[in-house]
Amino acid sequence: MTSRPAKLRYGMAGGGEGAFIGAVHRIAAAMDGDWELVCGAFSSDGDRNRRSADSLRIGAGRAYASVEAMLAGENQLPPDERMEAVVIVTPNHLHKPTAVAALDAGFHVLSEKPMALDLTEALEIEAAVVRTNRLYGLAFTYSGYPMVAEARARIASGELGRIRLVEVAYIQGWLSEAIDADGHKQADWRTDPARAGLGGCLGDIGTHAFQLAEHISGLTVEAVSADLNIHVPGRRLDDDVSALLRLQGGATGVLRASQVATGVENDLTIRIFGDRGGMEWHQMEPNSLIVRWPDRPFEIVRTGGAGVGPSSTARQRVPAGHPEGYLEAFANLYRRFAQTVRSGGTTPPPIDTPEWFPGIADGIRTMTFVQAAVANHRSTEKWTQLAEVEQRARQQLAERDTQRRAP
Amino acid sequence: MTSRPAKLRYGMAGGGEGAFIGAVHRIAAAMDGDWELVCGAFSSDGDRNRRSADSLRIGAGRAYASVEAMLAGENQLPPDERMEAVVIVTPNHLHKPTAVAALDAGFHVLSEKPMALDLTEALEIEAAVVRTNRLYGLAFTYSGYPMVAEARARIASGELGRIRLVEVAYIQGWLSEAIDADGHKQADWRTDPARAGLGGCLGDIGTHAFQLAEHISGLTVEAVSADLNIHVPGRRLDDDVSALLRLQGGATGVLRASQVATGVENDLTIRIFGDRGGMEWHQMEPNSLIVRWPDRPFEIVRTGGAGVGPSSTARQRVPAGHPEGYLEAFANLYRRFAQTVRSGGTTPPPIDTPEWFPGIADGIRTMTFVQAAVANHRSTEKWTQLAEVEQRARQQLAERDTQRRAP
Amino acid sequence: MTSRPAKLRYGMAGGGEGAFIGAVHRIAAAMDGDWELVCGAFSSDGDRNRRSADSLRIGAGRAYASVEAMLAGENQLPPDERMEAVVIVTPNHLHKPTAVAALDAGFHVLSEKPMALDLTEALEIEAAVVRTNRLYGLAFTYSGYPMVAEARARIASGELGRIRLVEVAYIQGWLSEAIDADGHKQADWRTDPARAGLGGCLGDIGTHAFQLAEHISGLTVEAVSADLNIHVPGRRLDDDVSALLRLQGGATGVLRASQVATGVENDLTIRIFGDRGGMEWHQMEPNSLIVRWPDRPFEIVRTGGAGVGPSSTARQRVPAGHPEGYLEAFANLYRRFAQTVRSGGTTPPPIDTPEWFPGIADGIRTMTFVQAAVANHRSTEKWTQLAEVEQRARQQLAERDTQRRAP
Amino acid sequence: MTSRPAKLRYGMAGGGEGAFIGAVHRIAAAMDGDWELVCGAFSSDGDRNRRSADSLRIGAGRAYASVEAMLAGENQLPPDERMEAVVIVTPNHLHKPTAVAALDAGFHVLSEKPMALDLTEALEIEAAVVRTNRLYGLAFTYSGYPMVAEARARIASGELGRIRLVEVAYIQGWLSEAIDADGHKQADWRTDPARAGLGGCLGDIGTHAFQLAEHISGLTVEAVSADLNIHVPGRRLDDDVSALLRLQGGATGVLRASQVATGVENDLTIRIFGDRGGMEWHQMEPNSLIVRWPDRPFEIVRTGGAGVGPSSTARQRVPAGHPEGYLEAFANLYRRFAQTVRSGGTTPPPIDTPEWFPGIADGIRTMTFVQAAVANHRSTEKWTQLAEVEQRARQQLAERDTQRRAP
Repeated sequence: MTSRPAKLRYGMAGGGEGAFIGAVHRIAAAMDGDWELVCGAFSSDGDRNRRSADSLRIGAGRAYASVEAMLAGENQLPPDERMEAVVIVTPNHLHKPTAVAALDAGFHVLSEKPMALDLTEALEIEAAVVRTNRLYGLAFTYSGYPMVAEARARIASGELGRIRLVEVAYIQGWLSEAIDADGHKQADWRTDPARAGLGGCLGDIGTHAFQLAEHISGLTVEAVSADLNIHVPGRRLDDDVSALLRLQGGATGVLRASQVATGVENDLTIRIFGDRGGMEWHQMEPNSLIVRWPDRPFEIVRTGGAGVGPSSTARQRVPAGHPEGYLEAFANLYRRFAQTVRSGGTTPPPIDTPEWFPGIADGIRTMTFVQAAVANHRSTEKWTQLAEVEQRARQQLAERDTQRRAP
Repeated sequence: MTSRPAKLRYGMAGGGEGAFIGAVHRIAAAMDGDWELVCGAFSSDGDRNRRSADSLRIGAGRAYASVEAMLAGENQLPPDERMEAVVIVTPNHLHKPTAVAALDAGFHVLSEKPMALDLTEALEIEAAVVRTNRLYGLAFTYSGYPMVAEARARIASGELGRIRLVEVAYIQGWLSEAIDADGHKQADWRTDPARAGLGGCLGDIGTHAFQLAEHISGLTVEAVSADLNIHVPGRRLDDDVSALLRLQGGATGVLRASQVATGVENDLTIRIFGDRGGMEWHQMEPNSLIVRWPDRPFEIVRTGGAGVGPSSTARQRVPAGHPEGYLEAFANLYRRFAQTVRSGGTTPPPIDTPEWFPGIADGIRTMTFVQAAVANHRSTEKWTQLAEVEQRARQQLAERDTQRRAP
Repeated sequence: MTSRPAKLRYGMAGGGEGAFIGAVHRIAAAMDGDWELVCGAFSSDGDRNRRSADSLRIGAGRAYASVEAMLAGENQLPPDERMEAVVIVTPNHLHKPTAVAALDAGFHVLSEKPMALDLTEALEIEAAVVRTNRLYGLAFTYSGYPMVAEARARIASGELGRIRLVEVAYIQGWLSEAIDADGHKQADWRTDPARAGLGGCLGDIGTHAFQLAEHISGLTVEAVSADLNIHVPGRRLDDDVSALLRLQGGATGVLRASQVATGVENDLTIRIFGDRGGMEWHQMEPNSLIVRWPDRPFEIVRTGGAGVGPSSTARQRVPAGHPEGYLEAFANLYRRFAQTVRSGGTTPPPIDTPEWFPGIADGIRTMTFVQAAVANHRSTEKWTQLAEVEQRARQQLAERDTQRRAP
Repeated sequence: MTSRPAKLRYGMAGGGEGAFIGAVHRIAAAMDGDWELVCGAFSSDGDRNRRSADSLRIGAGRAYASVEAMLAGENQLPPDERMEAVVIVTPNHLHKPTAVAALDAGFHVLSEKPMALDLTEALEIEAAVVRTNRLYGLAFTYSGYPMVAEARARIASGELGRIRLVEVAYIQGWLSEAIDADGHKQADWRTDPARAGLGGCLGDIGTHAFQLAEHISGLTVEAVSADLNIHVPGRRLDDDVSALLRLQGGATGVLRASQVATGVENDLTIRIFGDRGGMEWHQMEPNSLIVRWPDRPFEIVRTGGAGVGPSSTARQRVPAGHPEGYLEAFANLYRRFAQTVRSGGTTPPPIDTPEWFPGIADGIRTMTFVQAAVANHRSTEKWTQLAEVEQRARQQLAERDTQRRAP
C-alpha cells in the first residue's frame, strides 16, 4: 500500500431514476475508492433529476438541468472542487454531442457503448479527443475480466500458434417479446433508429462481441458478410445478427448476436483456435478459461489460480474461487447493517425478511458447533448433543461471573 | 430512489498491509455508497499502521496505535464526526476483546468470523450486546448470496416438504502443504491454537458450512459425531473435518470441511432433500439454484431470473446473467481510467500492459463494424471490407469539414 | 484383429419379464460378440419363464423351471453345446445358493452385487470358488469405466502422492416415496430384509461406493463409523447411509449413500486427494476425469484423449468425444431398420413415430446442402437456394438418363 | 416381452482391420440381438479381408473378395441362409456403386454417411431404391439419441412456438495438423476429392449438423451463404465451414463445422429458439435437453426422466442417470470374463492389468463393509474395525463347518 492520490471527481450525464446502467457505473466507480460523484445532469425531467440527485447525496446546487449547464457550472467552481470527468450513461444518440461538448469544455470522458450512432459520429469524437488532449474511455466491460486479459496475453505470446478460427456469440432473450412496443424503458430507445443508431442488436451487443473478438485474438477483422434480421413483427431495428468474418492473416470466423434467443440471459462466449491450441471463455462462468491442446489433457485456467499472468492478476481483487459475486454478497451484509443502524435497529431484522443479516445468534450457534465437534472428536461416544454443550457453557459462564461478582 | 441518510462512519480494527480480508471489507463497504472509512487501528506495528492509513486516505490523527486508543480518541470527537461502528478484521483471538471493548465504548460492531476462540467467549460477546444495546453483525458472507436467500425462502415455504437430508461441504486446498511452517501470513495464525481458537479448519470454514446448513434448511443441528484430522505433519490444529449430523425433526446429514483438498480453490456446496423435492447450491456457480422434483424435469433458478422471490431480488444489483464478477470487471475500467488521469495520461496505456482500458480506438473499430455489417446486409455482395468503410467515412468527414470551413 | 475363440455359452438365473438388470446384462454380453445366451431359468413363475425364453429365442427345451433343473439339464448335454457360465440376476437372497450350486455343478459364475445377504454367505461362496476352481465375477459395473481405470492407474503410479482424503457419494432419489409399499417390483424386495440382506441402501448402492473407494484409491478401509437411517415411514431397511472412514496409511474419508435424495437420478461421485494432487470423477459425466494440482491449472483427462494409459484404452470402444451413449444411438438405428424389414416395410416409418430412422430423404437433403454450400462458396452472390440446386440436379440426371436411353 | 422374429442376416462392405466405423456398426448391430453378421467383403486387400473375416468368426466361404462377389455368392445360397442386408462402411466414393449394386441384387442397404460424392449420385441411389423397393437406411447416428427425438417431438408439438433461430455447430480438432499428408488412414481419404466427394469437413460432419438442424427444427433450409476454408496448407478439401442459413417460415440461422478446432474432440451442439421458448442439446452431454422459457426457470429434461415422451423412451435402454457409457462399462466386465475363461483362467487377472475385472475379493470386501457398518450403527462406539469383522466371520464359519463335519 502506498499513498493514494485524491479521488477523481465526476459528474454523470444520464443515469437517473429507472436507469439500469447508471447505477452499475456508480457501483463500479465506488468499489475501489478512487472516484467520487460530485454532480450530475441525471435526467431532462426536472423532478426526476432532483429526486435522483437527492438519492445520491448530491446537493441541489450541483444537480444540473442539462449537460450544458453542468459543463458551464462546474467550470465556474475552483479547480479543486470542480468535477474532472464526465460519465456518459445516456441513450446512444446523446453519446456524441455529450462527449464532444465535455471534451471541449476540458473534461475527461468515460462513455457507455456503442460509441455513437454511426462511424461518422465516432470519428467526430476522435477528432475532439485529439483536439483537446483529454482522456476518453469506453465501457467495453467484458475486457475488464481477468480471464479475458489472460486469454489475450496468452494468444499474444504465441501460445496457440497461428490463429485460424474465431467464433464469438453474444445472445440474450429479453427482446423476444415486443416489449419495446409496450413502453419498456430499456427496450424503447434501443429499438428506435433515431436514438439507437444504425444497429439495434448489432450496436447494443454485437459491438461487445466484435470488440472482444479483436481484443482477445489480437487480429483485425478485414471483411464481413452479414445477415441482420428482425424477428419480432413491427420492430424497426435488427434483433438478430449473424456474420461471417475474415480476419487478418487468413483467420476466419463467425459472429452471432441475438436479443430474441428466448429464455437466454446474457450468454457471451468466445472460442479461438490456432494451429497449436484453442481457448474458450464464457461470460456466464467468467473465472474459467478453457485451454485445449492437441496432445495433452485440456486445462481450466482460473482467475487467481496457478499459472496466470500479470494482466490477469492486475484485474483480480479476491483469491481464486471467491470472485464470482463474492464481493456483492459481502456488500449485501454491509448494506443491511448500515440500513439497520440508520433506522435505529440494534439487532438484525427477522431472519425471513429480505433485510436480515447474520449476527449474534449465528455466532453462538457456530461456536456451539465448533465446541461440540471438538468434544465429540475427543470422546469415544458416537454422538454429542449441541444443546448440552451450549447449556454447559452458559452455566460455566454464569458461575464464573457469580464468582467474580462475589466479594 | 429516495433521499438517503448520511454514510455510516466506521473505523477498522486490523486490515493493514498484507491482510486479505480487510480489503474485501472495504470494497464491500464502498460498493453501495453507504459506509465511509474514517479511522483505524490497522496494525500493532506502528510503521505498517501509518502506511496503511496513508494508503487509505486516513490522516495521521485518526490512525490509532491500538484499538483502545481508537475507541477513546473517537469518543472525544463531536458525534457527527465520530465513527459509529467498528469493523473487526483481526486474527480470531482478538475478536472477543475488540468486540466487547467497542460495544462497551458505545459503538456498533461488524466482525469477521469465527465469532471468537470458543463458545464461552461468544457468550461474553452476547452479554455485551445485551448490556450495551448496540448492533452486532457477523460476516457469514455466503448468506449474502441471492440464491442462498432464495433457497431458504423456498424451504421455509414448504416447497421441499419435510426435510430429510442435509449435505454440506466446504473444501479448499491451500493448506495442503506446510505453508504455515514457512511463515505464510494467512496460514500462520490460522493454525496456531492461541490465535485461531478451538478449531483450525473447523473454525475457519467449518463454521461457514454449519451456518449455511442451519440457515438454508431452517433446522437446528441437534447432535454431532465428528472426526477431526491433521493431515500435514507438524500442524497443531485440524485441517480436515468430517461430521455426521442429526437435525431437528429427524433429518440427518453430513458436514465436510477441508483445507488439504489439494488443488481445490474454494468449493462450498450444499444439498438439501425433503420428501417433495431437493435443492443444490454451489458457491463456485453462485447464481444458479438447482431444484429437483420427483415428477418433473429439474429446474435451474437463476439470480434475477424468472420465479425468484423478494429475499433474493433484495440482494441483487444487476440483471440476470450479469452478476458474476460483472461489477468487478466494470470497476476495473474505472480504476484504470482514474489511475491514468492521476498520472497525467490522456490516452489509455498500451494494450498489452495490465493498465490498459478501452478507449477511442475500440470505439472506432466497433462503429466501423456496425457500419460495414449494415452496408453488407443491404447489398447482394458477399463480402464488405472494413478498411474501405472506415476510409470512406474518414473521407466524407474530411470533405464535410472542408466544406464547413470554406468561406 | 486375430482369430477369435468361440462365443461363451451362458444361462441366466433370473432376469425374466419386468426385470431391469437382466436386460442390461444381456446387452452387455451381446455387445462385443463374445457371449451367447443358450438357456435360462428366468422366473419361478412358469408362464413368465416361458414367455421370457420365447422372447429371447430360447427354445422350450432349455427354458428351465428352476436353477437346479438348469444345472442338471445342461450337464446332460454334450460339452460343446452345454452352457459354460451362469449369470445370476436374481434378488439378493438367491445369490449365494445359486452361485454355490452353479460352481459345484462345474459352471463359471457372473453374479449381480451385492455378493450375498451377509458376510458369512460371501465367505461360503469364496469357499465354493476355491473348492471348484471355477471363475467367479461380480458386477461392480462402475469399475468398468475407462476413467475409473485411469484414476486407479494414476494413483497407483503415485501421481497424487500420499493419499489423505477419500470422499465417495452415491445418491439416488427413486425410493423417496413409499413405492415399496405399493408393490413396485424393483423396490419391493430391495427393502425386505429377508430378500435384500443386512443392508438396504447400504447393500444396494453403498457397496458400489465402497468398492469404488477402495478400488480407485488402492487403500483398504480399516474402520467405519456409520449412521444408517430410515427416512420413509414403515420401511424396514436403511434408505440413507452416512459413514466416516479411516483408511490404510492415515487417510480419512466419508461415504454417503442415499435412495431418498428426491429428484436425483444416479449420482455417483468420488474425490480423492493426496499431498501432491487431487482427482474427481462423476458417473453422470463418466468420460471426464478431473485432475487438480497445487501449482498449475487443473486438467480434464478424457476417455480416449491425450495422456491416457493402457488400462483406460483397453476399456474404450469409440474415439474421444463419442462414447457417451453413442453406441446406443447407433444401435437405435439398427434396431429400427431390422424391425422395419421384419415387418415388411421398405421405407423408414413416418418421421414423427418413435420407429423412424434416417433414410433416402435425409441423404438427398444433406447432399443438396453440400452441393449448395460449395456452389455458394464459389460465387460472389450472397445466397444460394437449395430448392434450385436440387431441381437442377434432378433435371441434369433426367437429361442424362434420357440421353443414355436414346438410341 | 413377446416372441421375437429371427435375426436379420447382414453382410458388410468395408470395415476390415484398422477401420473405425465398421467396428462401431458391428457393436450397434449386436447390442439388441436383432442382427447377425454372416458374410463380408471387408477389404480389397485379400490378406486383410481374410484376417478380418477370421476375427469376426466368418468362414472363408463367406469372406468375399469384392462386393460383386458377395452379392453374387449370397444370391446362390438358400433364402433362409442368405444375407438380407448390406451394411456399407467404405470410404465415400464407394457408397453409391455399392448401394446401387446391392439394391439391384435384391438386398436392403444400411449405409454410412455422407450418402454419396454429390447430389447426383444421391439421386441415383434414390432411383435405385424406388426401382427395387428395398429398404435404405443412412447412419445419421445423432438422430438416434433419445433427447434428439424428444427435442423434435416437443418442437413439433408447438412447445417453442414459431421457430425463429437455429444454431448448429459440429467442431472437431483432429485434422488441425496435416495428418492426411502422413498417410493417416482415417484422414487420408477424407481429404481426397476423388474419394471424399464435393465437401471435406462439409461432407463428413457438416452433413450431420445440417441433418440435425432440419430434423429437430422440423424446418427446411431454403438458402445458404457459405464460407468454406482450408486452414491446413496443402489440404485439398475444406476443413472448416461457416454458413448462414435461411429456413422455412422466416427462421434464420448459422451452421458451423470444423475439423481444425485444435484440441476439441467431438462437440456437436444445437440451439433452437422460438417465440415461446428455446432448446439446447450437446452431444457431449447427450442425456440432457435444456429447455428455456421467458417466464420461468429453465429446465433440464433428462433421458428416462420425468416428462419425456414416447419418441424418447423408445430409444432408451437403461433408467435415468445410467445411460452414458453404462452399457459399455458393463460390457467391459463381460468381455474380460469371457477372455479369462477362454484363456483358461479361474480368477480375475491381477488388479493392475488392463484385463482385471471384479470377483470374489471385491465381494468379500464389500460384504465386510456392510456388516461392519451395520454393527457400528447399532453400537454406541464410534469406530468399528473391518478387519475384526472379517476375522470374526471367518472364525464363525470355520467353527460352524467344524461342527457340521463333527460326527
